[in-house]
Amino acid sequence: MSIELRSLHKDPAACEGQTVSVNGWVRTVRDSKVFAFIELADGTAFRPVQLVLDKNETEDFDRWVKLKLGSAITATGRVVLTPEAKQPYEIKVERIELVGDCDAAYPLQKKRHTPEYLRTIAHLRPRTNLFQAVFRIRSLAAYALHRFFQERGFIYVQTPLITASDCEGAGEMFQVTTLDLKNVPMDKGEVDFGKDFFGKPANLTVSGQLNAESFCLAFKNVYTFGPTFRAENSNTPRHAAEFWMLEPEIAFADLSDNMDLAEDMTKYVLTYLLEHARDDLTFLNQFVDKGLIQRVEALAGSEFVRITYTEAIERLQKSGASFQFPTAWGEELQTEHERYLTEKIFHGPVFVTDYPKDVKAFYMRVNDDGKTVAAMDMLVPGVGELIGGSQREERLDVLLARMKEMGLEEAPYWWYLDLRKYGGTPHAGFGIGFDRLVMYVTGVTNIRDVLPFPRTAKSAEF
Amino acid sequence: MSIELRSLHKDPAACEGQTVSVNGWVRTVRDSKVFAFIELADGTAFRPVQLVLDKNETEDFDRWVKLKLGSAITATGRVVLTPEAKQPYEIKVERIELVGDCDAAYPLQKKRHTPEYLRTIAHLRPRTNLFQAVFRIRSLAAYALHRFFQERGFIYVQTPLITASDCEGAGEMFQVTTLDLKNVPMDKGEVDFGKDFFGKPANLTVSGQLNAESFCLAFKNVYTFGPTFRAENSNTPRHAAEFWMLEPEIAFADLSDNMDLAEDMTKYVLTYLLEHARDDLTFLNQFVDKGLIQRVEALAGSEFVRITYTEAIERLQKSGASFQFPTAWGEELQTEHERYLTEKIFHGPVFVTDYPKDVKAFYMRVNDDGKTVAAMDMLVPGVGELIGGSQREERLDVLLARMKEMGLEEAPYWWYLDLRKYGGTPHAGFGIGFDRLVMYVTGVTNIRDVLPFPRTAKSAEF
Repeated sequence: MSIELRSLHKDPAACEGQTVSVNGWVRTVRDSKVFAFIELADGTAFRPVQLVLDKNETEDFDRWVKLKLGSAITATGRVVLTPEAKQPYEIKVERIELVGDCDAAYPLQKKRHTPEYLRTIAHLRPRTNLFQAVFRIRSLAAYALHRFFQERGFIYVQTPLITASDCEGAGEMFQVTTLDLKNVPMDKGEVDFGKDFFGKPANLTVSGQLNAESFCLAFKNVYTFGPTFRAENSNTPRHAAEFWMLEPEIAFADLSDNMDLAEDMTKYVLTYLLEHARDDLTFLNQFVDKGLIQRVEALAGSEFVRITYTEAIERLQKSGASFQFPTAWGEELQTEHERYLTEKIFHGPVFVTDYPKDVKAFYMRVNDDGKTVAAMDMLVPGVGELIGGSQREERLDVLLARMKEMGLEEAPYWWYLDLRKYGGTPHAGFGIGFDRLVMYVTGVTNIRDVLPFPRTAKSAEF
Repeated sequence: MSIELRSLHKDPAACEGQTVSVNGWVRTVRDSKVFAFIELADGTAFRPVQLVLDKNETEDFDRWVKLKLGSAITATGRVVLTPEAKQPYEIKVERIELVGDCDAAYPLQKKRHTPEYLRTIAHLRPRTNLFQAVFRIRSLAAYALHRFFQERGFIYVQTPLITASDCEGAGEMFQVTTLDLKNVPMDKGEVDFGKDFFGKPANLTVSGQLNAESFCLAFKNVYTFGPTFRAENSNTPRHAAEFWMLEPEIAFADLSDNMDLAEDMTKYVLTYLLEHARDDLTFLNQFVDKGLIQRVEALAGSEFVRITYTEAIERLQKSGASFQFPTAWGEELQTEHERYLTEKIFHGPVFVTDYPKDVKAFYMRVNDDGKTVAAMDMLVPGVGELIGGSQREERLDVLLARMKEMGLEEAPYWWYLDLRKYGGTPHAGFGIGFDRLVMYVTGVTNIRDVLPFPRTAKSAEF
């Protein structure tokens, strides 16, 4: 019987004494004269299995003790429970079959490799403990998010990545084109986009929100989850050119509902990971971020504080702490401020709401004071902002006035404005950078190490 | 108590006699002198709810009977079971609140609109019955696929969309650039990609397979699910420039395991939809595709036949049917052939395997006959090919020989070839065009009508 480690680990006692076959890759080989031990990983669980080879019982013992790290094998043997050993069971091997040999030049020999080096072998790094844990957690977190929204009846809308609207600032956007760059067709000194694939300039999207709003006003509760892009030439550990964003949007809902949703979602994902990725988290907690599990558990069980931006500024000013950036009303909150609020003042997650309208986007709902908008940022210890969102401006006249104020043309937004004419309702939504969430729940501090094949300035290997 | 229709529909008896509030959009208003009936949809379920207004019991009766289609309201009233009526319950309205008025120019007045017209108002079409059903099914199908793979322990790997490898034919690919198209920097007569964002030419991917193979050889079972792109200038009902693909990849597995997986996955999704989207399917069955439910049920319960390409050619030749394209060994199977096989010969789903290597990709495993490769296409009635896949060539020497034969350079594939050097194992995978699957399960025949905001040649509105 061929069996995966994820099944075997769950209930080894069910297989006690049975002969099973496991497929996997050799992680380590230790041998003595009569016994040898092979750690075999199959990728279906964080923990490998220990294979025990016995010169007297294992066919071709002398051959298999020389197995190279990284080789793929099928091992057949008997499951033996080992309640007194480190691992709860092992397999006494009767025979091994070599499925795929490993060249001696294998770059993943048994030693500690730096993340920088491992990025140069991104095709092999998922075989290491660190990336086994990170990418398993990434997968489970993505699924947990889907599950959360689907259980609540949200519709998953796959908003387009290519956008040809001229309405968004193209400064930090990638252009998408089929024009021959060597011979760009020109017409009266301008690029002749009539000859391009879409007949006009096209970009890669920075957010699916505007499209999601359209679906929200038909399905009430929706979410997008997909890649977004930013052509920002910044070489930081927190920015990638291609990253994943989740953006829910809810109708007949205000900022308070929006915060409820963000809080529930966050707790749900963390709880799901604590239940389904325990071995991975334990490893990360031990080798990457000593406080990880405690931090994740704390957040999953937290009361989320809600304060206004105005209160936040007051608290920061009164704190007496010295910051690099000013803490005057009207200024953006910087990461140092956000972290101070969540780590030093509230010792837990905080929603900051009602920001000055001048630092926020045109679509955010203007509050009655005329100075602030119904925006929210969710700040968490160790990171700062994890989620940003707002109630959307549903009043056509107010929205138009805001757009005028900010110098935005109406024409390209015709359909977005339509949504305010035809049964527009209060609605709200937020965005969570999925990679940032994965960083948070793994303790990994560089976004390049939570993306399977990261794309950043001057780097798009593999 | 505010309640969503998806909850109310499930068990109206639980709310019998209770006063509830429902939020939604007005679909129809019918009035007589004393009574009025409003169909209210809230997007959380396919079926609207019937609101009953009574001149003697409903506040401001005269105002609400003039409600415009498309208006957003909150209606509060008592749930009354109506076992003898068409709908199982209705709400006797006590009061209504207008949440968002609807301009009289609302393009979705109560009449049948053509799909072509509705594409011009893609921001409003999700409010129609057709698109309520299509996009709910799309969402549920996406989730069912995630669920299927996650239940089996597969790792979801989000492979990158931007690829800068020079290895794939750029002919039908979109270029991604931050160069100023008006002033493309040149160096010795060539575009100076050193100045571009990634420092070299970059494209939008056509498949995540090669990247997924890398993860498959670490995690055993993985899948990708994300957008893919093709800059094909073809104006057909089955092609879009941006579409979603799901691609599983399994290690220690051969073509037969691959077919098992494709069959199980297909049945799982269809069964999930039959259970979770009954109202939507019933509507589509009635108004879009009379045989839909029967076809979906049949496929979900089918035995999937498996034949080789060689057998398929023989059967087609023996059939005596006349085809537009030839049925000689070595030729591609065309849609007419595929449909004949699945509809006329086998009357059910068919896997066709072991195609001539000359019509297939370089990475497919060469069979012992030296002439065919371990490829598979899954054909289903009404469509033809729904899934295409193969066992991958894991033997380095054979793969290199194939690449040479096909004129492919080795260098850009260095990391892909590495996977064959370091514990490479038999592995296999397939791709399913998610939009095609949605077309299959909705009966909708134009891909533009299953994509929320379709992108095709000369068209990228919204």
